[in-house]
Formats: sequence, structure tokens, C-alpha cells
Amino acid sequence: MAIKFPAQQELAPSNEISLSNVRHPQYGRYLEEYVPGQLFVHPRGFSFTQSNIDSFSRTYMQCNPLYLDLEYARAHGFSQLPASPQMVFNVVLSLGVQNDSEKVIANLGYYNAQFLAPVYPGDTVRAMTMVTDRKERGADKPGIVTIRTLGVNQRCEVVLQYERKLMVAYRGDRLPTTPLSSVALPAFPWQTEASVKLPDGLATALRHVPTSVTGWNTYAEDFKAGDIIVHNNGRTISDEHFALTYQVGNTHPLHYDRIYSSAQSGPMSGNPIVYGGLVYAWLEGLASRDLSENALWEIGFTEGYHTQPAFAGDTVFALSRILAVSDAPGELKDLASVVTVQFIGVKNITSAKALEQYGADLFIKENDKKDLGKEKIKEKIFEIERQLLIKKRG
Amino acid sequence: MAIKFPAQQELAPSNEISLSNVRHPQYGRYLEEYVPGQLFVHPRGFSFTQSNIDSFSRTYMQCNPLYLDLEYARAHGFSQLPASPQMVFNVVLSLGVQNDSEKVIANLGYYNAQFLAPVYPGDTVRAMTMVTDRKERGADKPGIVTIRTLGVNQRCEVVLQYERKLMVAYRGDRLPTTPLSSVALPAFPWQTEASVKLPDGLATALRHVPTSVTGWNTYAEDFKAGDIIVHNNGRTISDEHFALTYQVGNTHPLHYDRIYSSAQSGPMSGNPIVYGGLVYAWLEGLASRDLSENALWEIGFTEGYHTQPAFAGDTVFALSRILAVSDAPGELKDLASVVTVQFIGVKNITSAKALEQYGADLFIKENDKKDLGKEKIKEKIFEIERQLLIKKRG
Amino acid sequence: MAIKFPAQQELAPSNEISLSNVRHPQYGRYLEEYVPGQLFVHPRGFSFTQSNIDSFSRTYMQCNPLYLDLEYARAHGFSQLPASPQMVFNVVLSLGVQNDSEKVIANLGYYNAQFLAPVYPGDTVRAMTMVTDRKERGADKPGIVTIRTLGVNQRCEVVLQYERKLMVAYRGDRLPTTPLSSVALPAFPWQTEASVKLPDGLATALRHVPTSVTGWNTYAEDFKAGDIIVHNNGRTISDEHFALTYQVGNTHPLHYDRIYSSAQSGPMSGNPIVYGGLVYAWLEGLASRDLSENALWEIGFTEGYHTQPAFAGDTVFALSRILAVSDAPGELKDLASVVTVQFIGVKNITSAKALEQYGADLFIKENDKKDLGKEKIKEKIFEIERQLLIKKRG
Repeated sequence: MAIKFPAQQELAPSNEISLSNVRHPQYGRYLEEYVPGQLFVHPRGFSFTQSNIDSFSRTYMQCNPLYLDLEYARAHGFSQLPASPQMVFNVVLSLGVQNDSEKVIANLGYYNAQFLAPVYPGDTVRAMTMVTDRKERGADKPGIVTIRTLGVNQRCEVVLQYERKLMVAYRGDRLPTTPLSSVALPAFPWQTEASVKLPDGLATALRHVPTSVTGWNTYAEDFKAGDIIVHNNGRTISDEHFALTYQVGNTHPLHYDRIYSSAQSGPMSGNPIVYGGLVYAWLEGLASRDLSENALWEIGFTEGYHTQPAFAGDTVFALSRILAVSDAPGELKDLASVVTVQFIGVKNITSAKALEQYGADLFIKENDKKDLGKEKIKEKIFEIERQLLIKKRG
Repeated sequence: MAIKFPAQQELAPSNEISLSNVRHPQYGRYLEEYVPGQLFVHPRGFSFTQSNIDSFSRTYMQCNPLYLDLEYARAHGFSQLPASPQMVFNVVLSLGVQNDSEKVIANLGYYNAQFLAPVYPGDTVRAMTMVTDRKERGADKPGIVTIRTLGVNQRCEVVLQYERKLMVAYRGDRLPTTPLSSVALPAFPWQTEASVKLPDGLATALRHVPTSVTGWNTYAEDFKAGDIIVHNNGRTISDEHFALTYQVGNTHPLHYDRIYSSAQSGPMSGNPIVYGGLVYAWLEGLASRDLSENALWEIGFTEGYHTQPAFAGDTVFALSRILAVSDAPGELKDLASVVTVQFIGVKNITSAKALEQYGADLFIKENDKKDLGKEKIKEKIFEIERQLLIKKRG
Repeated sequence: MAIKFPAQQELAPSNEISLSNVRHPQYGRYLEEYVPGQLFVHPRGFSFTQSNIDSFSRTYMQCNPLYLDLEYARAHGFSQLPASPQMVFNVVLSLGVQNDSEKVIANLGYYNAQFLAPVYPGDTVRAMTMVTDRKERGADKPGIVTIRTLGVNQRCEVVLQYERKLMVAYRGDRLPTTPLSSVALPAFPWQTEASVKLPDGLATALRHVPTSVTGWNTYAEDFKAGDIIVHNNGRTISDEHFALTYQVGNTHPLHYDRIYSSAQSGPMSGNPIVYGGLVYAWLEGLASRDLSENALWEIGFTEGYHTQPAFAGDTVFALSRILAVSDAPGELKDLASVVTVQFIGVKNITSAKALEQYGADLFIKENDKKDLGKEKIKEKIFEIERQLLIKKRG
């Protein structure tokens, strides 16, 4: 289709300038704008490509060859290099920011995340969110909103589901934000008994793939409940995180607009804060060589808390504590184990030094410390429980 | 073809070092090296890939799903995820830098840019430039050179044409620069009545694509002449811009070589200056959620001026003023509008505060201010008039 | 294959925390852990994609269209855009870091690198290393280990081979590192008379590709022994290098963990050091417009030394001295030449000023200076001898 547009003429100087029709579009929602039962279908599906999949894995220091080595992925029955579940989580959460959290005061936690199917190059993932609860705590106090979010691919398969709790202020007399869509909305297929779709050839592949020369210390047999693994290397985060925020589709200005971040009050004020999903991604990567190099899948995670923000210049480190190891269900029983890991992040102190200095207290949830008469750990930035499906050495 | 090369032997220590054959290759041109009628075919075609297309959109904070969501692009008749016209502009201008502007003192403005066809992954774009005018202003004063540039794909279709004015110094006794090619040069198919090639299926698609749940405030009907839109979010630019300069193929050392930039005089001296095309790209992205999320095409722009440089550390913001809205020509008449927008960039002040502080003056061209007895606005960095083809809500 | 995993329950608070099973996984090797004859098959093959190939070329400022312009590459008989040999070198070296050098004190030099076959999008390269020599220099002195490394694609073709010398400390009572694999290891096909696989169509293509309008000063005829080329543009390196280290697969914390780098002693202490492969890549890019824009292949290099580290904030520059020019062997004899180049890097001084200040001494190897009664050049960061296959103008 060819369309002739007339040559463009300069218009501005002859157009009278009036300040009577100024608008300030707003996104996100304030407390009274969330209603339990509401469904948001988020804008801007995210197309996964070999490129952004590969780039994510390498940026966040992934060492599991499943996400780096096409031949390895294929040998395990994956049709292409899959996106790491960590990337899928980052993207799906980010797609929801405009509706879910662009005006919230704080992200209180992640719960019940489950990765339900691989995402491959060529897939486009969209996200939708249901408001499941709103707790008000009286005038002038922010309330607590609970949401459930789904990531859905172009074949309408759910690839990820998780819950978040958010601390949200009242709108009061501030500008209105994103209106609810008037478009008829789809169903919201949250699964309570989640079933994970893994490659058909996986079990057969595992019986035939020779023991790799890699990952000598990360087979299922290498982990038992009670083990603590000190991940030695840290990562100094730079201003790179401004750009990385939008790379995963996150629109929140706290992460890339220094004038916005400087205008915040309290511990969030100052330089842009690293988007928490990116912090988790780096921590996961830093641990991957010692923990998940032989993982076949990230089953999910729960009880995830960013206990301090991270900024450009910070160096982050990770520690893992094995909570449980059990045989995988179904036909993978003899081939893989489910390993549950308490996963901790600290900053500006090596994980070895943090363990030396704080000992067992590192593994006590920060929110429980007050009741236990304990001090919070000022270098601790993250805590979560992860479930990994890890290959047995056999 | 197998070739045996003899094993490499160390040569340097036994090779006498002479300083009699030293050369300093130079690129760009000085004033007397431009002659109206000259044609430069620029080196290094740029191959667009799904990867660099996707990465550009995300780096510069694009919110129009046409450039992010393959399913959405296909639903509108595009065969693949197209490169954003902004990227095409950045690349074509950059390809020309070596011949056109690597020695210029200042980029005075962009004019009559028209995007004539989509660029897709797999396309390779080359650029050529014709010198159309050279104004000398007397001894010791730089002159003004006007050029026209075309971006051309591997099927010899022009995808972009635009004009630039450049301020250029005399060469005098400096080293000679890039010689004119002795290769026979192609024609220069500049179109005065430009015809834009859009996907064949676009009109049909627009009649059948359901109203999206996205972009509630960015349909053609949401804009009328006189509207001012304050884009709230800013972007803090980091040193990332050194690398981004070459990512689009721009070879000018002012943007990545601190020793070069520090040796400049006047307001350009100091840290490397952000390449103007990147500044425009970030401003476009910052506005995209409020302005162009439902755009189908960037028709073109004119009267584009970088009124101040930007540096790493600066936070940039955008404002839009709607100048005109009219039905699209031809078969898109009922389906889309042509929206003409005066588009302004400021730095280190939010767009809301800039509007509060400077009011209507923000929209007066900086070059007109002296004649109007007005001060220039020190935070203003960019002004241009854009024409967008925007979907009607219908 | 669908697997039902039970919903994840929080476990940490009820799991007693014991510090009796803490481990600190270590990678790399100390002196007594290398044994001549040992073979390491390195973990984590690297899948080359159009995306990481394109991104590498642009990040490191490549100007040879062979690595940027798909149409150009095809016209020369390459089936796709090949990875630049520089990228292949960076990746293969990085893949070996975990076994070869993650605990070494210093990288003493690169020798006898030969690029034996193109690497294309879709190829996965793995690396293996053989220890060829270990020199001990007495108690409390680090020793010298010599290794040979191969990069091998998924069809078991060797794409690169090179040697390195490393300075390595004794382990003593430190923690053990990577054990030797117990898996049966493959052969190690090092070639003494290396044969390079170039595209079958190359010779025919060279006879028919018209002289390009690009690279007017970089045909084989433009170089003769004794020429010195001053590459004018520098590149200011930013914190970007933290991330770029892992982009090529390098796991060494010296390059991205400020707490680790600050804890080092001597000139390596302080901010993370730029991985040397990246420094070389930038230097190569900075020179490419003056030297290798018409190169058809990087044959190899030898005697490569990083004589000083580079840090974020440094601006690097390159100089070339032509050591020899001879006809290519075999059927390319009339079409291309082998150009041997002494290639020098300096920092925080332009190459022009460095030449003015140090003259011929710039081209004397730093290690030879003591014997010659000369001072080392404090701004010099790199020296190497490269062999390029460069097109004749004909």
C-alpha cells in the first residue's frame, strides 16, 4: 500500500500557544483504585528472541548451559535455547508495572511463583493481573493490596503465575491514573495444583546424555538439607541498571530517572534504585555455578523479600542454604531431585564475611527479627525460598 | 577453500623502526572539500537484525507495541517486527558521519525527514549523501553546508530521506581528509512528492483488529490542536552512550573519546557529548506512552534543533504540543489521522516544572528568541516538529 | 511431559540453622594443580547468534563491513555474517578461564594464535586446554604454566588454537579448586601446520566484487613494511566492562567485583580491571578503519602482552607499524596479501602524542627495555604482532 503524504510544513511559529489544555498522563494506581476481583490485561506483550534470551542470561551471569549452549539445550529435549525462568519472571512482572505497581510505595513480597512452561525465541508473552485483596489500615496510612499475575504466551498457555503484596497510598486529591479497560476481559486461569510442561524428550534424554565434564559439584547428590553454600564472587552493579530496567519492559521511573528518585523520601531517596527483579537475577547468576549448573528447571519460589534497596556502585553477593531435597515426582523420580533452597543476598560485604559476622542470623527472616529480639542485618538485601529441579549424577 | 599459512614468526625486534613513513588517516570534510553536486556513497552498510531492532526499541524506552510485540505487528500487516523509524534515522545519519560530518563544528538542524518504507530484520541499509549547498561567510568564519541524505535498502528502495545543515570550518593547512570516490556513482533518487510504502494488509487489519486494552489515551481522537502533553518520566543518561554511539554506526569521536571531547573549546568541551540522535530517541521513547502508543507510522519530521548538548549524568524529559490533526490520506482516511506535534526536550528539570517556569516560551523556537527580545531557555535541549500516523479509536 | 509439583510451602523458619556444613566452592587452579599433559574440557559451550556477533562488532567499534553488512559478507562468499575472529578469541579464552586462569596472578602473554575456520550464527563453540609446561621457580615464588587451548565447533572443527603463559602461585594450605574431570577426554588436535578454511567462493568473489567505494586507504597496496599508522580516535571505557566480561563468558571476578579487585595488592588493586581481551578488541576496532576495513581474515597473532591494566575511565588508543607484506599463499596470491603488523595500545594519551613523545621506543617490546637500558612507557598498555589477510585493490 503506497500513501502519498504532502510534504511537511513548519507549523509551530504560526500556531498560537495556549496553556489551557495541558495534561499530565499518569500510570499505576492508588489504593482506592484497586478493587478485589478487578482484572488488568497489561499493555505491550514482550516478544522473546534468541537475542534478548541470550543477552539476559549473560548479563545476569548465568552459568547453567541450558540457557547458554544450544547443543546442550537440544540434548535435553528443549527445541531451542529457552528463556531462563528468571527472565520470564522479570518480564512478566515488568509488563504488569504500569497497572499494578507504578504508584506503589513498596513491593512487600513475592509468593507462590510457579514456572509452568518453557518460553522460547519467537514466543510473545503478555501478562494479566487480578486484584485478590485490599487491606485498608485507616486514614493516612497506606494499605496493602494483594494481586495474582499470569504470564501467558501467544498460544494462551500460562507460563508463569505468582502473587505479590504491595503497599499502596490513598490517591486523595492527586491526578487520576490508568482507567480500567472497557474491553471484555478474558478468563483468569490461576492453577492451584500447577502442572509444569517440560520437554517430552527430557526423561529419555537424561538417560542418554553422558555425564558432563561440567558441574562436578552441582548434581542433586551434592546437596543435602542443612548445607550452606557460600558463593564467593560478587557483582558490582553500575549505572547499566537504568537501561536494563526497560530491557525487561519495566516502566517505573524510580529505576532510571534520577530527578524522580531524588525526590522520594526516606531510604529510597537519592540515586535510582535497582529494580528488584534485576537484583534477584544477578544473585541467581552469582550462585549458578555452585548451585544450579545442573538444574533442569526453576520450579518456583515463595516468600521473596527485598529487605534493602541496591544502587549503582553496590557489589552484591549470594548465599544458599539447602532446606530440603526429595526425588522429583513422576517419571523423573530416578533422574532428578527437587531441591529447596533458602537464598540470601547481601551487599558490600563478601558472603564469606557476612557468614562469619552474622552466622545463623543471616538465615532468619528479617521480618521475624523484631519478635525474636534481634537486629536487622544492614547488609542483607534479599531473601527467598527457591525450588529447583536438579539432575541426579546417577 | 583451505589455505596453509606458514606459522607466524616474531618480526618486530629485528625490524628497524623508522619514523619517516608515519601517517594520520583523517575522516570527515572541511569546508573547501564540499562541492555542491557531490555525491558520497557511505561505507559500511548496516544489517538490521531482530536483535538490534528489539534492543534499540527497549534501550530508548519505546512503548508502541508495534516495535516490541511480534504478534501485534503481524496483526497490523507487518511481516516481522519492523525497526522503529527512529532507529532507521539514527542508523542512516550515523552511516553518513564519516563523509558528512566527522569534521563539522556543529549540526545546525534536521529538515524534511520522511520515512518511506519499513525496515525489517534481514534488511541491509546503506546511505548516500548529496551536497546541495555551500555558503561561505568570509575568511576565518565557518561556512554552512546543506546536504541531502538517503537511506537505501538492499532492494534499492529508499527507506528514508532527509536534509541537514552543518557548520563547517575551512581546512586551511590541516591534514587532507576522505577523498572522493573514483567509483562511478549511482543516481540520487530524492523524492519531492514522497510516497510511503505501508503493509498491504494494514487497512484491512485496522478494520478487524479489536480495540486494544492498551493505549487508552493515545488514539487519534485523543489529540486536538493546542493540546499540551507533559510527559512525566525522565531518563538519566549514563556513560552507556559511549557504546550506543557505535551501536548505530556513528564514528564521531566527540561521543566516546574523552580526550577528544576535553580538547574541544566552548560549551562542547569536557565529557563526551551524547550523540543527538540518541537524545532524540530517548525523548521519543519517554513520550511514547502518552503520544504514540497507537501510532502506525512515523511519517517524518522537520525543523529539528539540538539547542544544547547532553552529557552522561543528565536527566532528559519531553513535552508535546499538538499542532494539527487531520484525516489520513487515501484508504486510511477513516482509520487513522495525521497528527503534527511540536516536540520539546529539556534536561535536569521535570517537564512539569519546565512548563510551570517557562510557560508558552518553551514552545518558541530558540533561534527566534533573540528577535522577540526573549532569553534562551538554558534547560531546553531539543525542538522538532513530528508527523505521526495515529490509529483512530473508531 | 507434564509434571505436577506440590505447591511450595515455606520451610526456612522451621529448619534449624547449622553452621557445620558450610562450603566455599573454588574455581581455577594453583601451581601444583597443573600437570603437563593434563587436558581440561571447559564447561559452558558458547552459542554464537546473529545477535551476539553483531553486538560484539559494534561494541568494539569494528569498521570492517565483513562483520557488519550481511550483503557484503555474502558477496565475499560467507554464508552469513561471520563472528569476528576477535570475538572468537575473546569467547574461547573466556570459556577456559574457570579451569585455566581463574586463580592465576598474571596473564603473561598470548602466542601462536591461529583462526582456522569462520564461526557463524548457530554455531556452538566449546574449548579445551592442554597443559604443556610448568616451570617452578623455588619456594614462595610463583611459577610459570604454559597451556595450549583449542576452540572447537559443534562439528568438531577447530576454529582457533593459541598458547598462553600464566604466572601462578602455589596453593599451599588454601582451599582446593576445580578437580580434574573423571570423564574420558577427547583427543587434542593441535595443528603445527595450520590450514585455514575460508569460503569456497572467496577467490571467485574477489574477482567479481567491484572495487568498493569504501576503504580507500586500506587495500593491501596501501601498506608497506616500515609504515606507521597513527589511529586518531580513542575510546573511553566505562563501567560497561563489568557486564561485557560475562557477555563473552569470562568468569573471573577481577573484572566485575569491586570488593575482590580492591582486595588485590599492587597495581591490580582498586577498581575492577578491564579483561584484556576486551582491551584488545577495542584497540582492534579503533584501528579497523585505517588498517583492516578491507581485511578478509585475521590469520592470527603472537607475542601479545598486556603491559599495563586498563580501568573504567581510561581512554585507549592504538598505533600500527607494518612489519611485512607478502602475497597470500595458494589461489589468493593475486587477490590478497598477508600483512604483518606490530600493534600497540596506549592509554590516556593520544596515539599522535605518544608517538611524538616516545618515538621509536613505542615499538620496542617492554620486556626488552631493561636490557636495552630504556625506561618502560607508562602509558603503553598492549603490544602484539598480528597477521591479516588483506584484499588487493588489483
